[in-house]
Amino acid sequence: MDIKQYMEQVGKQARAASRLIAAASTDAKNTALNAMAAKIRERQAELLAANERDLAQARADGLEPAMVDRLTLTAKGVESMAQGLEQIASLPDPVGEITNVKRRPSGIQVGHMRVPLGVIGIIYEARPNVTADAAGLCLKSGNAAILRGGKEALNCNQAIAACVRAGLAAAGLPETAVQVIETTDRAAVGELITMPQYVDVIVPRGGKGLIERISKDARVPVIKHLDGNCHVYIDDDADEAKILPIVENSKTQRYGTCNTAEGLLIARSVAKKFLPAIGKLLAGKGVEMRGCAESLAILREAGIDNAKLVAATEQDWFEEYLAPIIAVKVVDGLDAAIDHINTYSSQHTDSIVSENYTKSMRFLREVDSASVMVNASTRFADGFEYGLGAEIGISTDKIHARGPVGLEGLTSQKWIVFGNGEVRK
Amino acid sequence: MDIKQYMEQVGKQARAASRLIAAASTDAKNTALNAMAAKIRERQAELLAANERDLAQARADGLEPAMVDRLTLTAKGVESMAQGLEQIASLPDPVGEITNVKRRPSGIQVGHMRVPLGVIGIIYEARPNVTADAAGLCLKSGNAAILRGGKEALNCNQAIAACVRAGLAAAGLPETAVQVIETTDRAAVGELITMPQYVDVIVPRGGKGLIERISKDARVPVIKHLDGNCHVYIDDDADEAKILPIVENSKTQRYGTCNTAEGLLIARSVAKKFLPAIGKLLAGKGVEMRGCAESLAILREAGIDNAKLVAATEQDWFEEYLAPIIAVKVVDGLDAAIDHINTYSSQHTDSIVSENYTKSMRFLREVDSASVMVNASTRFADGFEYGLGAEIGISTDKIHARGPVGLEGLTSQKWIVFGNGEVRK
Repeated sequence: MDIKQYMEQVGKQARAASRLIAAASTDAKNTALNAMAAKIRERQAELLAANERDLAQARADGLEPAMVDRLTLTAKGVESMAQGLEQIASLPDPVGEITNVKRRPSGIQVGHMRVPLGVIGIIYEARPNVTADAAGLCLKSGNAAILRGGKEALNCNQAIAACVRAGLAAAGLPETAVQVIETTDRAAVGELITMPQYVDVIVPRGGKGLIERISKDARVPVIKHLDGNCHVYIDDDADEAKILPIVENSKTQRYGTCNTAEGLLIARSVAKKFLPAIGKLLAGKGVEMRGCAESLAILREAGIDNAKLVAATEQDWFEEYLAPIIAVKVVDGLDAAIDHINTYSSQHTDSIVSENYTKSMRFLREVDSASVMVNASTRFADGFEYGLGAEIGISTDKIHARGPVGLEGLTSQKWIVFGNGEVRK
Repeated sequence: MDIKQYMEQVGKQARAASRLIAAASTDAKNTALNAMAAKIRERQAELLAANERDLAQARADGLEPAMVDRLTLTAKGVESMAQGLEQIASLPDPVGEITNVKRRPSGIQVGHMRVPLGVIGIIYEARPNVTADAAGLCLKSGNAAILRGGKEALNCNQAIAACVRAGLAAAGLPETAVQVIETTDRAAVGELITMPQYVDVIVPRGGKGLIERISKDARVPVIKHLDGNCHVYIDDDADEAKILPIVENSKTQRYGTCNTAEGLLIARSVAKKFLPAIGKLLAGKGVEMRGCAESLAILREAGIDNAKLVAATEQDWFEEYLAPIIAVKVVDGLDAAIDHINTYSSQHTDSIVSENYTKSMRFLREVDSASVMVNASTRFADGFEYGLGAEIGISTDKIHARGPVGLEGLTSQKWIVFGNGEVRK
């Protein structure tokens, strides 16, 4: 197979299909989404068999158990893919929304219309459910999609793709609106991210390594999610009753998610008062604390298990542990906390615990992260929790979309002008 | 001078200043803008003398007259720079705007806050007024700026930069919030566009060559404006009274602007009726028509000066002439017009002349351009005409900002969460 030629063909077909999908009615898109869900349910046995072939190969290749785990599709997983598509069908259609129309002195009326981006390339790793999920989100937002899944999931992805195509056909929409790359050749990714004539944006979903590689080589805009080094700052004026629940939930509800807190900052004036209880809670949950000298002294004094206390290095302030470890630092107060966060955080999600109005508002305004919170767990930074209904990913970029990206993040706004024969003076 | 080290220093200073500028009050920013304007007026003689040194060098180097023209700063130009800054001071501050706050079932309230992008790099060519203009727009939108002007304008740019710094100092803001690169070494541009750690977005202002070069090499997002191949489509249901004014204004008001029409499409059913008058008007203004066979036959039949009629090649449909030339094509109707535009236009600005509601709405929705118009001249695609108050450029990108980019285009929205101790279930 000539990869360049194959990808050129895929790109051309996607561009042509994108025009039809952009103009498709909400009804046609929803019909397709519901038909995809029905097909997925109907072909459950087929999908599981395809997945079993992938798993056999993965085991033969000696893949890590965690990877095999991510690759595994169960009957429950199939049902949840189908439900996911039905849920996307139930969301409002973002395309065509007209806002902010104003009459100008020239007589024209100018406003915005929300429109699809065009063709979206999604590059992901093992999880086969992404195939259905990404196809659904791209379709509902009026975009054509080119999906490139992990080579480990090829059989299952192709089986899901067949259901997606059947759904599109059932609604009279072009099957090329969602194309799943049929080769596992890595060169296909290289082509996909360097075809601005056919692809409008790339959304990589996977580990930091994948995303950095793609961002480096892409000639197409990338909506990317790098690390999640999130912080909780306990202010001088924190409400004692809110501290432990927020720290516990932010750090220990799940260790492997990007919105988990990796850093705890506490104002000096309240460090001696609150840090012992926090330390006890975290140590009790098996969380290691990498602290500054001041915080370690307080924690040791409070009798926290020394095995859980480690002196932090400069690198710890940058770290996304994704593990039962948290960096702890005593800071002078709000300004120092904001400084620390703006220096070391990954601009993902940071939260202040405070009852002080002015300091809370300053934290919201001055912390330069995608999600900034007052008195809430960092774990809320999520498309479903924010009410987006679905999420294609979380962006740590500053342009276009920040934070959880839903259907709107897959659209942009063009200008529309309603005139009555006006000309410019 | 070690360029890498110098740019690293500039970048670090910009990043540090960006935090202070992001948190600056509207009053401080406006005070700085008005003080810059006052300094520019006060130092008029100095600015003109610096410009004279640049012009002498340009003439000695044998620069093209058009280039020398763009480089020239007059007393009127100085006054208009000052007024531009005062106008930016009078615009509403986009930073801190909170919108769309909704309560979620978990109890948290989630919304958006508009925030600066951070550090903006502006790369431009000869015109020295861009220095003041870009500095003002970046400051008002809460961003730090790194400006890199054309080497021909170095003396004048540095003199303007001194006024900008004086204005910042007068308002107690850091002078490093606006830095004008002091070297003409091209390597400085290479550094500027590959420092994502210090620069959040690049806005190139200049010819297509400059912009293509920058986009190709940038490791930082680029808000770019490529060509303006704009169209007017005369529909079967066009109002005769609106046709000539819109065609005349779109094509002939100014030939060198990006929102000038370069293509005219006309529905077959009305081509014989309307094309002769259009041809007469255009030929009378000295505009050459590069037509399809059908349009040429009609125009010849109507006795239009044959010297103004040329057979169009495929390349003509892509062309941005920036000259008294227009491509003319007879099309079947709306679908063919939309097809032609989505195939050949540069997705800048396209306009339909029609009284038909359904066709007008379809044109608005289906033409995939930054500005889409009904019964209005393409020349309206402009930040001032759209009511933005000021314009940093016009984007032909699809993500982040499309079309005229004003203060809002230099900001993004982060998520904010107002909680009351909520944790995720």
